[in-house]
Amino acid sequence: MNRSMIRYILGMVLAVEGLLLLPVCLAALYYHEREGLYYLWTAIPSLAAGALLVRKKPESTVFYLKEGCVSTALSWILLSLIGCLPLWISGEIPSFSDALFETISGFTTTGASVVPSVEALSHCALLWRSLTHWIGGMGVLVFLLAVVPMSGGSHMNLMRAESPGPSVGKLVPRVKSTARILYLIYIGMTLLELILLKLGRMPTFDAVCITMGTAGTGGFGIKSDSLASYSVYIQWVVSIFMLLFAINFNLYYLLLLKRVKDALSMEEVRHFLGIVGAAVLVVFVDILHHCAGAFDALTKALFQVSSIISSTGFATADFNLWPPVSRCVLVLLMFVGACAGSTGGGIKVSRIVILLKAISKEFHSYIHPHSVRRVKMDGKPLDDYMLRSTGVYFATYMLMFAASFFLVTLEGRDAVTGFTAVAATFNNIGPGLEAVGPAANYGGLSLLSKWVLMFDMLAGRLEIFPMLILFHPTIWKEALESRRKRLKKQ
Amino acid sequence: MNRSMIRYILGMVLAVEGLLLLPVCLAALYYHEREGLYYLWTAIPSLAAGALLVRKKPESTVFYLKEGCVSTALSWILLSLIGCLPLWISGEIPSFSDALFETISGFTTTGASVVPSVEALSHCALLWRSLTHWIGGMGVLVFLLAVVPMSGGSHMNLMRAESPGPSVGKLVPRVKSTARILYLIYIGMTLLELILLKLGRMPTFDAVCITMGTAGTGGFGIKSDSLASYSVYIQWVVSIFMLLFAINFNLYYLLLLKRVKDALSMEEVRHFLGIVGAAVLVVFVDILHHCAGAFDALTKALFQVSSIISSTGFATADFNLWPPVSRCVLVLLMFVGACAGSTGGGIKVSRIVILLKAISKEFHSYIHPHSVRRVKMDGKPLDDYMLRSTGVYFATYMLMFAASFFLVTLEGRDAVTGFTAVAATFNNIGPGLEAVGPAANYGGLSLLSKWVLMFDMLAGRLEIFPMLILFHPTIWKEALESRRKRLKKQ
Repeated sequence: MNRSMIRYILGMVLAVEGLLLLPVCLAALYYHEREGLYYLWTAIPSLAAGALLVRKKPESTVFYLKEGCVSTALSWILLSLIGCLPLWISGEIPSFSDALFETISGFTTTGASVVPSVEALSHCALLWRSLTHWIGGMGVLVFLLAVVPMSGGSHMNLMRAESPGPSVGKLVPRVKSTARILYLIYIGMTLLELILLKLGRMPTFDAVCITMGTAGTGGFGIKSDSLASYSVYIQWVVSIFMLLFAINFNLYYLLLLKRVKDALSMEEVRHFLGIVGAAVLVVFVDILHHCAGAFDALTKALFQVSSIISSTGFATADFNLWPPVSRCVLVLLMFVGACAGSTGGGIKVSRIVILLKAISKEFHSYIHPHSVRRVKMDGKPLDDYMLRSTGVYFATYMLMFAASFFLVTLEGRDAVTGFTAVAATFNNIGPGLEAVGPAANYGGLSLLSKWVLMFDMLAGRLEIFPMLILFHPTIWKEALESRRKRLKKQ
Repeated sequence: MNRSMIRYILGMVLAVEGLLLLPVCLAALYYHEREGLYYLWTAIPSLAAGALLVRKKPESTVFYLKEGCVSTALSWILLSLIGCLPLWISGEIPSFSDALFETISGFTTTGASVVPSVEALSHCALLWRSLTHWIGGMGVLVFLLAVVPMSGGSHMNLMRAESPGPSVGKLVPRVKSTARILYLIYIGMTLLELILLKLGRMPTFDAVCITMGTAGTGGFGIKSDSLASYSVYIQWVVSIFMLLFAINFNLYYLLLLKRVKDALSMEEVRHFLGIVGAAVLVVFVDILHHCAGAFDALTKALFQVSSIISSTGFATADFNLWPPVSRCVLVLLMFVGACAGSTGGGIKVSRIVILLKAISKEFHSYIHPHSVRRVKMDGKPLDDYMLRSTGVYFATYMLMFAASFFLVTLEGRDAVTGFTAVAATFNNIGPGLEAVGPAANYGGLSLLSKWVLMFDMLAGRLEIFPMLILFHPTIWKEALESRRKRLKKQ
């Protein structure tokens, strides 16, 4: 285990978090809010500790996938632990577990809130929550890879551990350039949404928060009714941008290179849009008689489908009160999730497509036992490793889901609450149904449930393996052993 | 496609079904029930048609897995179509769909009933329902392989299509002998349970029906309260036999050969018993304060856990009214299911174990990227084909589950009813929760839901692929083409 390298990365993460807290302090100055002090008091030691840790360059830059997983998981836990401090110390979220839940929910772009009335929060808190979405969406380590001069050639393992999807599409051969391009596209699209929302005369503060929540496919609102009270124009802009941020960013890179044909032929994106279209149609028909006319129904159906499949979790209606078919469609979409290589969560469309192709291959082998069919995606053959690891991922996902569902049920609530609480956090959506529906919040859950769901949010965002690797006995044994060896040496 | 061979097998199936209907006619004579006539009127044409179809021996005995799947699926559909006739024509179940649902539920050993009051049924109907469980448990084609002189060397493909589990354990090199040994063990255990139930002074008719329902892990009761009104002794006997019939029959064969050590080291069985033990413990603690003392709670917990994990579906309590944790445990057990090579349904313990091993292998490859670990089960290495096909099976299972859940939701009931209706039929259990709970029945569901669930019951019993292969476009195209060719020839 390359401990010095992990220390170095954690130091970087601390420094970045310290820097991220500073704009919140500026906002506090602007709004004359005393809470800003807590953000400053967190930022300064965070920066100092970060500077201390990165002072010594790592002894070795050899970095395996194992180390990538461990440092990614540790980075996200550290981010959340530091990030929850201002919310907790300021007393805006008086319980530590609740503050941590809210922050993990922010960074993992879940958007599940424990706050009963968001309007009571300070501007600082609202801005910080939304900022965690924005940085969590593309990933803090991807950010590090983009801006920080890091030596060594195994950065891919860091990117692979943090980026969503069955494989990491390197846009260009160099990881650093890939990370930069991704962040540039991300910033560009964020600015575009901000401008469009401002054109709809949205207040600037609201527009900034909602844009960051959309970009990261997070979903923290700044009003108790989420986006219901904004204009239809704003709702349409957000609907479309939720979809745009849920699409594989490779598409935008291809468009930038003017490779329009390649971009349009991306299988995952075509399936994604197909699923969105079908789901909007079903929900539209199902809620038509609950709405004020066809346009209203279309607006609500598109918004909610985009919000759930992109794993954002904004709401313009209390879909917990919708008819069973719509509720069922939304729950199924929670599992499907966004495209790989986007800021969204869930199982990912590409994994579903790969599984369907693997199934069709199995059928083929039943019907034509002597011919071998190769499974292709976007014209390229999918190797056995990819097919197997997608199957293994799916199985791990389902077993973890079942275990979490059981643990959350221990608090004695109805099955729909427990099931959708896990579905909405593990897939980084936000609102579920019943007691965790869009009109309710996660504050009333038991402490056990909250901790289980915190783990699920992190596991969901990092796609399970980094979190499980971190808690794997072998890793701990190795760490203890190397500690013992070092102590012996001294 | 070897059509003449498929015709021959279907003829055999018809003949066997005709013979199976005869004991019901005898029971009708004994109980002086007019309904017996309908069973006779079904038996005679069934026998005649069967005799006609098997008169001409098949032209070729070459038989691929594809043909195995198609003839297995067709056999089970034919069995159910003929088997439902007496129930329908006698007017005991006046709707054809309902009669077919009940019969499919019987043959697939599901035990989900549409009959509101079982006590109102004739002895004939009750006996026939239980007999369908018994024959469906071990499989009608396995029965054919055991008793009927069939030529050709590709019987394995028939057995593989009908037997549950990721692989078919041939006990001895010859398929015919394996089938015979399986049926002998099955008959022996059935007789043993019958004797033990008679020792508990259970009425003979009840004992026969309940034994056949246990042996096939079916679950049709002959009283509205299922087994609640029988003595505690009877409940314990049934509990234990439900578990025994849910265990891989290889175990009993090994015990017969006095290879006790091999038998005790069977990984699947040990995991199965471990899961049962843990589930009983959780349910016991959870329902303790709802029961009349610890022994009552233990009796109820053991009975219900055995009933659900073995996919039988008998009930001694309305577990729909149990606390959320117990309900959750039972729902999770529905998915786990019994052992491969038993008469039970569900995903099967061996598949779960294989998936867990595949996951652990994936972890290993993350932590030690340069070493290759082989996955073993019962000391033998699991090949890549098995790992991949188990993953593919699991994915197919989950996607079909999601699709069925969506279709059943269309009727507008609550999510728990829809979810557990699919879980209880796809896994061949019987009762679900809420509107399809143990104190309710499936009669109130919409026609669409019933047909979806009928498909699910067959797909669940035959482990999905045979049913999907039957409806695969390639198979139909081939069948139509060969028909056109034959017509041209003439």
